[in-house]
Amino acid sequence: VRQWTLGVDIGGTKLAAGRVDDSGVITRRRERPTPTGDGATVWDALVAVVDDVLAGEGIAQIGVGCGGPMDRAGGCVSPLNIPGWREFPLRDQLQDRYGARVALHNDAIAMALGEQQFGAGRGSDAFLGMVVSTGVGGGLVIGGRPVDGRTGNAGHIGHVVVDPAGPRCTCGGRGCLEAIARGPAVIAWAREQGWAGDGDRAQGPALVATARAGDPIALAALTRAGQAVGVALASAVALTDVDVVAIGGGLANAAGDLLIGPARTAFAAHGQLDFVRGCAIRAAALGADAGIVGAAALVGIDGAGAAD
Amino acid sequence: VRQWTLGVDIGGTKLAAGRVDDSGVITRRRERPTPTGDGATVWDALVAVVDDVLAGEGIAQIGVGCGGPMDRAGGCVSPLNIPGWREFPLRDQLQDRYGARVALHNDAIAMALGEQQFGAGRGSDAFLGMVVSTGVGGGLVIGGRPVDGRTGNAGHIGHVVVDPAGPRCTCGGRGCLEAIARGPAVIAWAREQGWAGDGDRAQGPALVATARAGDPIALAALTRAGQAVGVALASAVALTDVDVVAIGGGLANAAGDLLIGPARTAFAAHGQLDFVRGCAIRAAALGADAGIVGAAALVGIDGAGAAD
Repeated sequence: VRQWTLGVDIGGTKLAAGRVDDSGVITRRRERPTPTGDGATVWDALVAVVDDVLAGEGIAQIGVGCGGPMDRAGGCVSPLNIPGWREFPLRDQLQDRYGARVALHNDAIAMALGEQQFGAGRGSDAFLGMVVSTGVGGGLVIGGRPVDGRTGNAGHIGHVVVDPAGPRCTCGGRGCLEAIARGPAVIAWAREQGWAGDGDRAQGPALVATARAGDPIALAALTRAGQAVGVALASAVALTDVDVVAIGGGLANAAGDLLIGPARTAFAAHGQLDFVRGCAIRAAALGADAGIVGAAALVGIDGAGAAD
Repeated sequence: VRQWTLGVDIGGTKLAAGRVDDSGVITRRRERPTPTGDGATVWDALVAVVDDVLAGEGIAQIGVGCGGPMDRAGGCVSPLNIPGWREFPLRDQLQDRYGARVALHNDAIAMALGEQQFGAGRGSDAFLGMVVSTGVGGGLVIGGRPVDGRTGNAGHIGHVVVDPAGPRCTCGGRGCLEAIARGPAVIAWAREQGWAGDGDRAQGPALVATARAGDPIALAALTRAGQAVGVALASAVALTDVDVVAIGGGLANAAGDLLIGPARTAFAAHGQLDFVRGCAIRAAALGADAGIVGAAALVGIDGAGAAD
């Protein structure tokens, strides 16, 4: 019987869990949409997903990546996109229900750890994983360990300033990468330029599809977002001296080179120091599985939010 | 007899060394201008400074901060501002001459370590020290240890992009903080706006003096540089989650609040996430001594460039 670890990925769109084996492969996976509603409703949905993955087997350790912000020391989460959970005692609730130790971290950091251990960052000793999706986030993995910073928030590349005179950001700042490159901002910019969408399709997939079909506005929107990503990466690599960056998340996974190509071009234009040029900019390799695989990888990282 | 450590600070302008006691106080200090000329000339000047500080006493360990870039693994330095030294085997030369173990790092990282241990960053577990001088540099100290990154170059805040459409940087990029805030760039900008200098005084001190006397162009030049520093810090703190930043270096030490005030204002405008707002932006506390004190502090940091 192969060993497996339970990885749980909690976001505003879906709740997902899986059994992850020692080589980072998910052998049983379940997910359901994140319910809107009160905290108990969200909790019940999470339990249903986890129970389905466990299928009656016990589990000694659970790794959890969850949208931020969170109080990691206390094990309480207040995900921006899950209004029903505010200071929700996720770690204690999971421990009580499953009798398992729980390792908890921000979802972007879990994703980064998954990519570093089993995906596009394999073998890198100084790695930045980033997500371009509804939001823009990231995580640093140095020497095989997630970098926490003082409050567990290191890696917030979405709030690197790429244009001081740029658009307002939801954080209250101005010109953050996230204000330009998050999916809804890319779509809003395309709409302003006259992009008409694609019938009833969801706007993110429609934007990518019309860009692939040659729509110049859709292409320009993804190019603009990719350039902003590249500028932010030039700054991030100068500061952190990582040697591999992987870009994942819903929008980046869908757009592929339409986003990552312009990111590489802008990175090359701005990041000219030798050690910066030596950094590889890659597409993430694990797709939508990175969150679960990375959450499972949190188990075994000392101090990754596990209660004593 | 108090214990002391030898700290050596090697830059393009001066060669400095001092005995540093356990509380970070320099008890005997010597310096001389960095000679222009070949490698042997620079080496002879360095030896004269070190011999003067040693005054015939032996030394078991030497800490050295040196301008970059360098090959830390090999102990060879190629400081941009010391043309006579290219792949100069500084570590082996010092070891051979003094029979001492040598801990070597970039000067900005040594300065950051000095400020973290004995200056404005004391007590911080996640600290960024930066220098605004002829160049703009920095170093991260997390958990009491300098952060190296893959090639020992982490902390290069001077090459964080603060304006993607901004001026060309000496690195080849565009809109780097250094291209706007380094002393020569600040003076060049003031000259372009019509600043006339102050007689025969050196331009850096003259710029600060005329700003203090109310010259609007000189004030605007320092404000512009400070704002760029603040934008870069908003990006850097979002990425690294440090809780204290200290700003030192020749221009910042001279200009004080004329530079750091606008930096704080721009930082507050752009850095709006709670964990970013919680970071303190301080003036460095050790002045011109930070390099020597920090170099001495490299001794005792595992793996800080010491040969085995």
